[in-house]
Parts: sequence; C-alpha cells; structure tokens
Amino acid sequence: MANFCMILQYDGTRYNGWQRQGNTPDTIQEKLETILEHLYGEPVDLNGSGRTDAGVHALHQVANFRIPRMMSRYSCREIQDYFNEYLPADIRILSVQKVDERFHARLNAVGKLYEYRIDCGEIAHIFDRRYLYRVEEPLHVQRMREAAGYLIGTHDFRSFCANRQMKKSTVRTIFDITFEEEDGILYIRYHGDGFLQHMVRILTGTLIEIGMGDVLPSQIPSILDGRDRSLAGFTAPPNALFLVDVFYEDSQEPDN
Amino acid sequence: MANFCMILQYDGTRYNGWQRQGNTPDTIQEKLETILEHLYGEPVDLNGSGRTDAGVHALHQVANFRIPRMMSRYSCREIQDYFNEYLPADIRILSVQKVDERFHARLNAVGKLYEYRIDCGEIAHIFDRRYLYRVEEPLHVQRMREAAGYLIGTHDFRSFCANRQMKKSTVRTIFDITFEEEDGILYIRYHGDGFLQHMVRILTGTLIEIGMGDVLPSQIPSILDGRDRSLAGFTAPPNALFLVDVFYEDSQEPDN
Repeated sequence: MANFCMILQYDGTRYNGWQRQGNTPDTIQEKLETILEHLYGEPVDLNGSGRTDAGVHALHQVANFRIPRMMSRYSCREIQDYFNEYLPADIRILSVQKVDERFHARLNAVGKLYEYRIDCGEIAHIFDRRYLYRVEEPLHVQRMREAAGYLIGTHDFRSFCANRQMKKSTVRTIFDITFEEEDGILYIRYHGDGFLQHMVRILTGTLIEIGMGDVLPSQIPSILDGRDRSLAGFTAPPNALFLVDVFYEDSQEPDN
Repeated sequence: MANFCMILQYDGTRYNGWQRQGNTPDTIQEKLETILEHLYGEPVDLNGSGRTDAGVHALHQVANFRIPRMMSRYSCREIQDYFNEYLPADIRILSVQKVDERFHARLNAVGKLYEYRIDCGEIAHIFDRRYLYRVEEPLHVQRMREAAGYLIGTHDFRSFCANRQMKKSTVRTIFDITFEEEDGILYIRYHGDGFLQHMVRILTGTLIEIGMGDVLPSQIPSILDGRDRSLAGFTAPPNALFLVDVFYEDSQEPDN
C-alpha cells in the first residue's frame, strides 16, 4: 500500500467538527474524503490524528490515507493541488508526503498542542474577533498559572470530560500548560498526550473562573479527585480553540 | 464649544461605507451618531477624516464632534466607554481626547495612508481570508514598483476616479507607494494628500494587471494623461483595503 500523510489547516467555524458521523453534514473529514473519492474513483478512508469539536480550528492537523500501489498514480504535489483546487476556502492542505506504510496519524500520535485565545485587553479586538473569546473582567494570570501547576502531570481527568458515561480510561498526561500575553490576548497552550471530549475547553473555563477569582487554584486537586464533571468550570466556547501541532515519535515524524 | 477627537477602528464588511447618506442603512457614521445622540440627548454631527467605501476597513480613522460647553458633562473616558459599550463588535473607539476648538478631522487632514493586502502566496490564507484579495497568478513585484514610480507625485488622477462626472479637481499628490511581502501577503501602502472615489482600488487593480504582465509599467504616463477611467485597470475589491493612518499638521495632531 502507498501511504500518504497530509498536513492541513481549517477554520472550523461552519463545520460540525472533524469526524464524519452518520448523516451529520459538513464535517471536515467528509469534505476531504469526498475529494479523495473523486480523485481515485473509489472510497478512501482518511485517518485524522484526532477529532476536533464543532467550531474548533486547526493550524496543523495531520491525516493519512492508504491506497493500493497500483492505484497510486498521482504525485504528492498533484494530490495537494487537487485538494486545494476543490476544497472550500476554509480548508487548505499545507503539504502531502509519502510515509512509511505503517504510519497512522491517530495511532502513532504521541502528543498534541492546543491553543486557546482569550481577548482580555482593554479594547476588544475587531478583526480577529471570530477567533477570540472575549472576557471583560480582569484575569489574574498568576493565579491561573498556579492552578495549571496542579493540572500538569498524569491524572484522571474525568471531571474535565464532557462525556459523563465515558467507559474508557479518562487518565491523561498534560506535559505542560503555558501562558503568553501579547497585545491584549492571553494565549493558553496545552501540551498533552491526548485530550478527552471538550477537555481543553473545560480546562480553559475552569482556569478563567480561577483568573476571575471565583475558584481558588488550591481547589484543583479536589476537582480532579472528585471525578465529577459538575465540579469543574464552564465549557469555554469552541471558536477560540486551535489545534496547533501533533507530535509523533522522531522516526515517524512527517516533515512539515 | 468643546471639541472631541476620536480615533476608531472598524471592520467595514457589513457596512455601506463611512458616510451617512439619505435612507441607506448601516453606515458607520450613522451608527456612531446614533450613540452620540443617545449620550447627549440631541443630534450631534460627527466629522470623519474622509469617507471609506462600502466594505473598506479602518485600523485608524479619525473623527471629531463639537458640543456646547454647557452640554459637555462627560469625560473623554466616559465617552469612549459609552461608545464601546453600545457599539457592535465590529466598531471600536481606541481613544477620545479634547482638542482645540478649531480642529476638524476632514478639513485639517493633510495626508492619509491606505494599505491593500494581496494574498499571492502558494497556499491561500484561511483565517484572514475575509481581509485579503487572493491572486493565484504570480505577480512580478519589481514591475509593480516600477509602475508605482510613475504614479508618485502630483498628477491629475481622473483616470483612477470612479466618478466620471467629477466636477471638482481630480489632481492629487501621492507622496509614496511602498511594497512589502511577508508570509505570502503583498502589502501595498499608498501615502497621499487625499484620494478620489475608488482611487486606491483602481490603482491597485492597475498595479495587479501590471504585475501579471497584462500592462507595461511604461504605460502609466499615458493612462494618466488620457484622463479617462476606461484606460486604467479594474477596481480591486474593497474587503482587502484598510485606512491605516490619517495625518495632520504637527500642531493639530491628535495623540493616539
């Protein structure tokens, strides 16, 4: 089999998330698979590195697809150009490359980096407003950093998972949470081995409540220990969340 | 009279331009004057530094309004906060200050800087696509610079004016036209003493045709001399045009 890995970008605003699901229209995966089918004349499965929720964006999503060698008549460049010609303007393929036959975008991913963008400056941003979450109250970032310290590490994040009936493990490892303020925007970056449903948005909502003083940083351990969604904060809206990178073992890393 | 000068920003996408005109709804001026009237309890005229067309944006527009001293009961800060509370999210007041009673945002303006943004990189930008004009063909920027050299200076720009029945002078001075390429975006900046209707967009359309090789830089002098709109290029779309600064004599310059 020939195995192709794509790096792509999308504005998730008008999509029902990454994952194709039954009759739900307008998923990113469905848009891409439709083009793949037109290109090769038969259905081809595309594996994304993971789902992104409805309304969430990707600066760097990774996906791969395999096709029998005898069907593999197009170069990486031709595949990329074909996609970019037929995709709507809110999805772009940044690169396509041939990879080892065993590479799988989801199964081989060892980490992901998400970024949440909070507009907390004195005057709200205009031109990027669709991609920012506006918070009028002042945020005490030092407290948010302190709370993040309790979240980093390997924990059961059931309290931060939207799926209350989740049967699989809700244990995840957060390698790091960083905060950067620039031009009135607070960027919170989450680097972890994987994230549960809505986990980054619930973490962000909880950190915002801590930044506003409604919750204390020292309450985080008991929120984690309670393993109950109702203990954590609100789910921050999707429009300000970006998947910014997906990590693989060095030997499998697709070059950008 | 108390005279207030405001610096403001707007996303022009959903507006019929700056200028209030008869029954045309959704002009920026009308939105602002409605709030001024609510604030002071009677109609107040707002003078913008100049009109911007429907769909054109401003990173820095200047406007002033005068009110009788006895009505002037609000501080600059209160005026700014009142506007930013009631304005839609696509218009923001960056500052309000008291200025000399004689200051007039339009009559005292001695120069303006406009920026046109062309997305000519290999892969189209996604997140800023609403504010970019996408050109797929390669642009020969050196030729565009050469053409700009003929445009700089004091000329009759009638060929670059959308109003074919323009009765007033169509002579304007362009002080400079600069080109900057960054991350696949070509920024063309026009600094002049004033611009005719659609002039920046027609200049841009003409420069794009030159960049694509359809028109030679050396044809600019005859386009200018012909004083005929049909000689110049197409009118580039408004969504990629920004008013980025307005200049006044030093003594009248409102601080940002």
